[in-house]
Amino acid sequence: MSTYVLVHGAWHTGKELEPVAKSIEAAGHKPLTPTVKGNRPQDPRNVGLAEAIQSIVDYLVLNDLMDIILVGHSYGGMIITGVADRVPDRIRRLVYWNAFVPNDGESLNDMLPSQYVELFEAIAIERGDDSVVLPFAIWREAFINDADLDTAERAFGVLNPHPIKTLRDKISLKANPAEMAVAKSYVNCTEDISLPHHYPWHPRLSQKLGLFRLIQIPGSHELCFSNPTRLARAIMDAGRD
Amino acid sequence: MSTYVLVHGAWHTGKELEPVAKSIEAAGHKPLTPTVKGNRPQDPRNVGLAEAIQSIVDYLVLNDLMDIILVGHSYGGMIITGVADRVPDRIRRLVYWNAFVPNDGESLNDMLPSQYVELFEAIAIERGDDSVVLPFAIWREAFINDADLDTAERAFGVLNPHPIKTLRDKISLKANPAEMAVAKSYVNCTEDISLPHHYPWHPRLSQKLGLFRLIQIPGSHELCFSNPTRLARAIMDAGRD
Amino acid sequence: MSTYVLVHGAWHTGKELEPVAKSIEAAGHKPLTPTVKGNRPQDPRNVGLAEAIQSIVDYLVLNDLMDIILVGHSYGGMIITGVADRVPDRIRRLVYWNAFVPNDGESLNDMLPSQYVELFEAIAIERGDDSVVLPFAIWREAFINDADLDTAERAFGVLNPHPIKTLRDKISLKANPAEMAVAKSYVNCTEDISLPHHYPWHPRLSQKLGLFRLIQIPGSHELCFSNPTRLARAIMDAGRD
Repeated sequence: MSTYVLVHGAWHTGKELEPVAKSIEAAGHKPLTPTVKGNRPQDPRNVGLAEAIQSIVDYLVLNDLMDIILVGHSYGGMIITGVADRVPDRIRRLVYWNAFVPNDGESLNDMLPSQYVELFEAIAIERGDDSVVLPFAIWREAFINDADLDTAERAFGVLNPHPIKTLRDKISLKANPAEMAVAKSYVNCTEDISLPHHYPWHPRLSQKLGLFRLIQIPGSHELCFSNPTRLARAIMDAGRD
Repeated sequence: MSTYVLVHGAWHTGKELEPVAKSIEAAGHKPLTPTVKGNRPQDPRNVGLAEAIQSIVDYLVLNDLMDIILVGHSYGGMIITGVADRVPDRIRRLVYWNAFVPNDGESLNDMLPSQYVELFEAIAIERGDDSVVLPFAIWREAFINDADLDTAERAFGVLNPHPIKTLRDKISLKANPAEMAVAKSYVNCTEDISLPHHYPWHPRLSQKLGLFRLIQIPGSHELCFSNPTRLARAIMDAGRD
Repeated sequence: MSTYVLVHGAWHTGKELEPVAKSIEAAGHKPLTPTVKGNRPQDPRNVGLAEAIQSIVDYLVLNDLMDIILVGHSYGGMIITGVADRVPDRIRRLVYWNAFVPNDGESLNDMLPSQYVELFEAIAIERGDDSVVLPFAIWREAFINDADLDTAERAFGVLNPHPIKTLRDKISLKANPAEMAVAKSYVNCTEDISLPHHYPWHPRLSQKLGLFRLIQIPGSHELCFSNPTRLARAIMDAGRD
């Protein structure tokens, strides 16, 4: 029996990972799905990256969670890397699922192609509320390409505006992920085209982990909606000893 | 219920796509499998690319087809790109299946490795009838690597000599595919080694589409023979809204 | 009915391929699993590459094996390439399974990233017995990433110290693999990360075969332990005419 803490990506909350958690629980483990500060309904959107990371550190401390498998999706990779830096003794293994892997001093934007950075900044300026949303056409074709239109629309409907400062802020780490002593895995969905093909998740970002375990499965960036059971299986293959 | 128009590749006719069409029909859609001018038994082989494209434009107009999902395989990517340029209002979505994606002024040969261009020209010169055929060893190992020998031989037996002018002719487009307003998908068979590995279908050619939906499935360049049902499923996942 | 001769990789013996052989036999073929000189319990560990190759040549001659499908895993790619050079008339097809493909004058080390070469040399110096072993952490995460911990530990327990001279020795060939007349296939396990991602098995090594048939399946470098039945199926798809 292992404790899995699942950290969602940008525009999501922990609630969207509940179907995945249900499958992990059915296999005999204890899954938890906190929402990062800045993505909860009541949160102001001017939250920065350090605050967002701290909210998950606080969650682990408050609930006295030890020996956990800490899973991060997409933007959640920034969060779990920061948490591993702050409270390494609480973590048994890090699992990145199509997630950003930052070195010390890098922001999420530093790992994005410039056209996305420019698009997100333009959207944030137009909104004027410190947050960014995703255009539906990009969501449909490049984020959730493996789902039918109903699933794509339903999932789009539950997304929340994401605090843009968390994408701009550079992370502060005592050591880069490759030097962290904790065990690491990378789950790569092979049809994830949310990043362009010449600028992929794996191996461009995964290899920043140093020695790590690779698990690959068919699916898009949003497999939590299109096939949560298969995703849960992959996370458990990545998370076991 | 959608109308799927399936455009075959070089050396093929629409008849070879009938098993795929049958699966699409069984799912409640209307599939059509015209043969491009130059590949029909009665056609002269000195047909060029513009004539080949026009034959499918004529087919759409003659049958008054609107709101179609236009699918192209391999060389068929040249055809559907040209058709989308001529009659964009008839097309709901373009689906490229391991297909060439030309920009304005490019020929199919411009996207081939030089050793294939040289081989095809040498074969055409030897034949002296404006057409090219494929050597069986290349067909067996690099085109239909996922089938047994019986299937490979049976499929080879139905291929027709392909008009070589259609490979040489440069396409004329008002806009490149990335700028076309129509929705686009790319189906990539992950064991397709008909193009060399450092010169692949995806992402080398797919990324010329701009924003597009990626669908990947196991299989060779000739999945229409080795597993038409799985191919049909992928085409429908690519073709739906 | 075909004869399959399965040549194991470094640290293995033929015994570890018996579950694969059993599946090949169940499909009506005749599988054989010799152990290369240098990896048998009684062998001295100062064996070099030429001697190792010769031991499989001798095995084919002694058993009068003709028209065989000769399969090599990893280091076994060095062996089968050398055997094909010495006794081409006995071989119907070469099948490389995530295996090294040497040109004349190349050693296995020449195809390894420098960090592995340095690690293996350091281990061999420390052992002082002409052999190298693999650290468990690397085995677990990068070689057998698709298995559970029990399987990973059990498999690690049967590995034998590998003669390091066979990794250093340069192979002598009359012709490079691309020029060999024999048919060739490459089986690539898509989650094999035993070589780093920017330095992969396929297509970096496979394309040295010239025209070859690609078969891909999900799995790690050690699919013989994690899913021998699926591996056997892939080897037979690669080995058939």
